Amino acid sequence: MEFAMALAQDAYPVTDRTKPTRGRDRADYDRTLVHSILDSAYVCHLGFVRDGAPVVLPTLYARVDERLYVHGSTGSRPLRMAGQADPGLPVCVTVTHVDGLVIAKSAFHHSLNYRSVVVHGTAHQVTDREEQLAALDALVEHAIPGRSADCRPVNAKELAATAVLSVDLREVSAKLRTGGPTIDPDEAPLPYWAGVVPVQQTQGAPIPADELASDIPVPDYLAAP
Amino acid sequence: MEFAMALAQDAYPVTDRTKPTRGRDRADYDRTLVHSILDSAYVCHLGFVRDGAPVVLPTLYARVDERLYVHGSTGSRPLRMAGQADPGLPVCVTVTHVDGLVIAKSAFHHSLNYRSVVVHGTAHQVTDREEQLAALDALVEHAIPGRSADCRPVNAKELAATAVLSVDLREVSAKLRTGGPTIDPDEAPLPYWAGVVPVQQTQGAPIPADELASDIPVPDYLAAP
Repeated sequence: MEFAMALAQDAYPVTDRTKPTRGRDRADYDRTLVHSILDSAYVCHLGFVRDGAPVVLPTLYARVDERLYVHGSTGSRPLRMAGQADPGLPVCVTVTHVDGLVIAKSAFHHSLNYRSVVVHGTAHQVTDREEQLAALDALVEHAIPGRSADCRPVNAKELAATAVLSVDLREVSAKLRTGGPTIDPDEAPLPYWAGVVPVQQTQGAPIPADELASDIPVPDYLAAP
Repeated sequence: MEFAMALAQDAYPVTDRTKPTRGRDRADYDRTLVHSILDSAYVCHLGFVRDGAPVVLPTLYARVDERLYVHGSTGSRPLRMAGQADPGLPVCVTVTHVDGLVIAKSAFHHSLNYRSVVVHGTAHQVTDREEQLAALDALVEHAIPGRSADCRPVNAKELAATAVLSVDLREVSAKLRTGGPTIDPDEAPLPYWAGVVPVQQTQGAPIPADELASDIPVPDYLAAP
C-alpha cells in the first residue's frame, strides 16, 4: 500500500540520506529524470559493507518499474551476502554519466557536467522463478534493447548458477550539473579560455565473433544509430 | 620503509579483500596496468560507511604516484567524516571503463568488456598546505592535462573552503574482460549473431562560455585529437 502510493507520486520523497548537504550541485527527485538516468548507463556501482568496511563493485543492472536488478554468479561475494543476510543486505547503488569537462578561468571553478542517481536500499535475493527469469531478460534488454528475444534463452542449469538481487527504488535522488563554467566578476578579464568540452559515450560498429558464420547479418537493433 | 619497498615492486600484494572470489573475470595486480586505468577515467566512485550503511558517490579524483586524491567542499559529508575520523575513514574507491557490449548466442553469456580498479583503503584529510596545493593542481591536470598552469591558481579563501582527502594505493586490484563472447560448442550452430559492440568515451569540440571574449583561442591541450 505504501509502495503503491509512492508509485502514484511524481517524485521520490526526500529523506535524511537523500537531502543535499550543500547547494553547489542540483539535487532532483523527479521519477522521470531518475528513470532516464538509470536507463541509459551500462554499469552501476554497487556498494555494500563487508566486515565494517565499504566495498564498491561495478556491475550490470536493469530497472523494471520501481525495482533495480543486479545479477552474478551464486558464488560471488555480494550475492552470497545478500542471500544470507536477513532481512537483506544494505546497499547503495550509484549510476553516473559524465557529460562534459567544465573549464573555468580559475582552477577552483573547474568542474564536471554530469548526471547521477544514488539509490539507498536493501538488496534481496530473488527467489521467485518467474521474477528471476524476467530480471535476466531485463538485464540483457537494458544494455541491448531487442536482444532478449533474439538469443538462446537461459536454461535450468544456468538459472541455478545465477543469483539475482533486487533493490526497490524508495530512497532515491538524482544530482546533476549542466551548463557553462562559473566565472566570478573579477575573473572575467583574465586571458584564459573558458567553456565546456563535451564528453559522450558512443557505440562503434559491431565486430563479429571470429567463429561466426558469415551469412548471419548484424541485427538491426545493434546497427550504429 | 614498508611503503618504499612496495613502491619498488611491480605489483600490488594480493590480500583477502583483493583476491577474486570467482575466476570468470581476470584479476590483475600490475602497477602499470592499475595506473593506466586510474589515469584515464574522469570520475571515481567513492564508497564509505555512514551509520552502518554504504554510501557511494561519484567524484573527481587524481593520482600522484601511489596516492589518490579526491576533493570537495569542507561541508560535504565524506570530507567532514574523514576530517573527524581517527585514524581516518575506511573507503573503497572504484574506477570503471566500459569498453564493449559482448553479444553471445545465449542470454547467459552476454557480458561487458571493461577495465576496473578497486582500491581498499583509508582516507585522510590532507593538512599540509603544499600537498593540498599540489593535489588541487593534480585534480585539474587529471581531467585536462596542461590546464593547471593555464588558469588563475587557487587563492587562500578557496583553499580554506576546499578539503582534500588522500588514499594510499596499498590494497589494490584491477579486473578486466576483453575479447569476444563465450560460445559453447552446442551454441555454435544457433542462427544468432554474436560479437562485440565497442563502447568508447570521447571528447567533442570545445564550446566557449557565453561571456568569453572572442579573441581568446581554444588552447592546444583542449583541441580534439
